[in-house]
Amino acid sequence: MKIKKDINESAIRIERFIHKTPVLTSQAINKMADAELFFKCENFQKMGAFKMRGATNAILQLSDTQKQKGVVTHSSGNFAQALSLAAKNVGVKAHIVMPSDAPQVKKDAVKGYGGEITECMPTLEARESTSKKIQEEKGATFVHPFNDFNVVLGNASAGKELLDEHPELDCIVVPVGGGGLVSGTALSAIAFGNNCTVIGAEPFEVDDAFRSIEAGMIVHNSTTNTIADGLKTSLGDITFNIIKNHVQEIIRVTEEEIIEAMQLIWERMKIIVEPSSATALAAILKSKQQFSKKKIGIMISGGNVDLKKLPF
Amino acid sequence: MKIKKDINESAIRIERFIHKTPVLTSQAINKMADAELFFKCENFQKMGAFKMRGATNAILQLSDTQKQKGVVTHSSGNFAQALSLAAKNVGVKAHIVMPSDAPQVKKDAVKGYGGEITECMPTLEARESTSKKIQEEKGATFVHPFNDFNVVLGNASAGKELLDEHPELDCIVVPVGGGGLVSGTALSAIAFGNNCTVIGAEPFEVDDAFRSIEAGMIVHNSTTNTIADGLKTSLGDITFNIIKNHVQEIIRVTEEEIIEAMQLIWERMKIIVEPSSATALAAILKSKQQFSKKKIGIMISGGNVDLKKLPF
Repeated sequence: MKIKKDINESAIRIERFIHKTPVLTSQAINKMADAELFFKCENFQKMGAFKMRGATNAILQLSDTQKQKGVVTHSSGNFAQALSLAAKNVGVKAHIVMPSDAPQVKKDAVKGYGGEITECMPTLEARESTSKKIQEEKGATFVHPFNDFNVVLGNASAGKELLDEHPELDCIVVPVGGGGLVSGTALSAIAFGNNCTVIGAEPFEVDDAFRSIEAGMIVHNSTTNTIADGLKTSLGDITFNIIKNHVQEIIRVTEEEIIEAMQLIWERMKIIVEPSSATALAAILKSKQQFSKKKIGIMISGGNVDLKKLPF
Repeated sequence: MKIKKDINESAIRIERFIHKTPVLTSQAINKMADAELFFKCENFQKMGAFKMRGATNAILQLSDTQKQKGVVTHSSGNFAQALSLAAKNVGVKAHIVMPSDAPQVKKDAVKGYGGEITECMPTLEARESTSKKIQEEKGATFVHPFNDFNVVLGNASAGKELLDEHPELDCIVVPVGGGGLVSGTALSAIAFGNNCTVIGAEPFEVDDAFRSIEAGMIVHNSTTNTIADGLKTSLGDITFNIIKNHVQEIIRVTEEEIIEAMQLIWERMKIIVEPSSATALAAILKSKQQFSKKKIGIMISGGNVDLKKLPF
């Protein structure tokens, strides 16, 4: 199977630059869910999120000439840090376009990982035009945070690791933002699962993926009032196509359900996870009957939270 | 060596009732400390703290007659929960004497683990007399939270696991409250270490262990204004004797240093640890030169925090 070969090759390619993250379980949460849950802890990944996998795979696929000229992306979230660190690991320059109103803590994190920040006005147009300018002036290669097949393949290594350890999983539930993690996981379920389905979890407040599948085309969010700050992005054509064909369904959850699931994970498992990650457990607890008695993987996408702004 | 045999036997005795907790590392924190740190994560222990080890060992050492009549302790902290769960695991009744002003959340936790609460006035006298009454009326055996050699031996299994995995450690730094964990760790360092020293960490605000060693006798705290709520207790004669003879030194840290170390662990390692646990890292970062280039174990004693009352 070609996809199996592609994921295997990506996993080997990025191996020395990433952590093989642990899979944790909680008897208390299993009892509540009446199911067996396996948490794939990408919050323990380098720089604190799965994005390190995709960013590293994309960088390592560049030609030597491309590597010399550096990479560029626009992001104010985890991907900005991931691309900075992944690039630094192999001696490539990373240009990060960030809106001028991005929090100082995020700018500091990018700088800490060696990224070179170019500030722009806080509009999508400004971000895109500034990125384009850097591409033209420096010859840097643009790396999209999720709508890039090499990024998706890199992300798929998380699902591969989970299924290598637990090939018996009935399904894997994954938070959906731009769709980079859920589409990678869907591909790894095809390649390494045994009839393992993949289900997305999304806040009602940013249910663009749910509505995109219904509409048969990419639709966007008009508002983004969610605590799950990693899930505000809309899908890209690459991730939409994979999701449409290989993700069984998208379960939507309320903000209260996300916060409750997040608190449950913090209190019972003693690990720090982002609100985005908690949507997956929220979806399972919400649709208990559907998941009852099953073996379920949960993608904990990351653990980068501002401890000064907790919802509890 | 007798102590080696005793700890080995305790470890085997409690094995099926406790978690073998993971040992985690952080490149970022290693860099800051200029040392190699190995965090023994008892925050992932059952009920969220190392106390499960000692409580289980004490319960399993009871005679059949004693088991039938139950156990009693007075505690409003982790040991109340630990004894409740350890007793429940082997079908023994646990009476927990708690002050009437103990937070509802702690009472609920004890009940959740099957402990039977007897409330009393919030004074040490009332706690002791109420415990005594239950001993007399029910024939229950009193189990002290730390000043009990079986409890210390059970706690020592954490140090044994750490040294089994990392026999090369130069030292282990341990938070000091009643001294149950640090004395157990000191015994396991003698039994399983290779010239491994044990160092205590204590808040300035409750530096009774530091002062007890100076004075050559147990002294108490007059105030307990520390965020490290697990470390307010004074030593008992059993733990004091072990500490006096086998703990190299006690390093004292400020409240700010504890909070800073706690935040560092939460943010960098993405794990939830109690303020008490953070004193150990605080001590290492404070006395950097002394620990430079060494391989150091850190006892993360527990992870039970009230998320609504964080110091950040």
